[in-house]
Amino acid sequence: MSIILGIDPGSRRTGFGVIDTSASKPRYVTSGCINVAKLADIPARLDAIFSHIQDICVQVQPTECAIEQVFLGRNVDSALKLGHARGAAMVAVLQAGVPVHEYAARQVKQAIVGKGSATKEQVQHMVRILLSLPGTPQEDAADALAIALCHANFSASMGRIAGAVGSRRGRTV
Amino acid sequence: MSIILGIDPGSRRTGFGVIDTSASKPRYVTSGCINVAKLADIPARLDAIFSHIQDICVQVQPTECAIEQVFLGRNVDSALKLGHARGAAMVAVLQAGVPVHEYAARQVKQAIVGKGSATKEQVQHMVRILLSLPGTPQEDAADALAIALCHANFSASMGRIAGAVGSRRGRTV
Repeated sequence: MSIILGIDPGSRRTGFGVIDTSASKPRYVTSGCINVAKLADIPARLDAIFSHIQDICVQVQPTECAIEQVFLGRNVDSALKLGHARGAAMVAVLQAGVPVHEYAARQVKQAIVGKGSATKEQVQHMVRILLSLPGTPQEDAADALAIALCHANFSASMGRIAGAVGSRRGRTV
Repeated sequence: MSIILGIDPGSRRTGFGVIDTSASKPRYVTSGCINVAKLADIPARLDAIFSHIQDICVQVQPTECAIEQVFLGRNVDSALKLGHARGAAMVAVLQAGVPVHEYAARQVKQAIVGKGSATKEQVQHMVRILLSLPGTPQEDAADALAIALCHANFSASMGRIAGAVGSRRGRTV
């Protein structure tokens, strides 16, 4: 059984999405967005991200975690803030004994929509289709589900390749 | 009683230093350096930083934590890596219910040596004198002890001011 937790980290909003890939078709488990923008300071925000991800790990017992590789602009201050959030989210998962894998946004779009330059709307639409959801998930939650689906896809491909030529896992962060 | 944990975070080495300020003169409790440079990947490094700081919190039961405000150069990649380490260290402290305060390197040097442009050697020397240590502590450990001493100094000043004009704590991160 494989329960994949996808995380789209951010200093203001961190999306999460959980899928179950034990059947032939991935099944939606849960998703949401940890909004810490209104919390007063960095410690309060990091504590909230950590605690929330920790709770999710207890509730859904993920076997794998996939996190978005961040696109870095030129702003070092933003990079530091994003690093804080990403670090807090990752340690919560790691403390639960779950391995973390990293995918670039382009890889995720390629896996979900079929092209690396897909728009956010196209990703949201395909996440809805692939998981047979009744509605479109919130933007950050959809991104997190897309990352989880990307990892599921990658793991399945690797499994097939491993069956033929020996085992090698996807890039671990 | 006040046990202050000082942290000098880094993506390769994170210094820590603990002092006890319950007596009139601050007393050295422990210090060291969490060296994660040899660990293979970011998750392993963050997990090690988090676990180590968590252990220290259990052992010394700090009542306050002071962390160095980071100097950001132009390298966004370094800022992200430092953010990861800083986030992991901070959540470990926050999960132990300890408030985190932040001081700029300049403030620390001013508090310990008396001038914001002091060299690393001057800081190490003064840390040794102020805590009556038998030898010079390792560089990162000395920086962490200096941050703890800076917070002790600031808290004492604030206490005196609070006694006169009402309470206002130092900047919390």
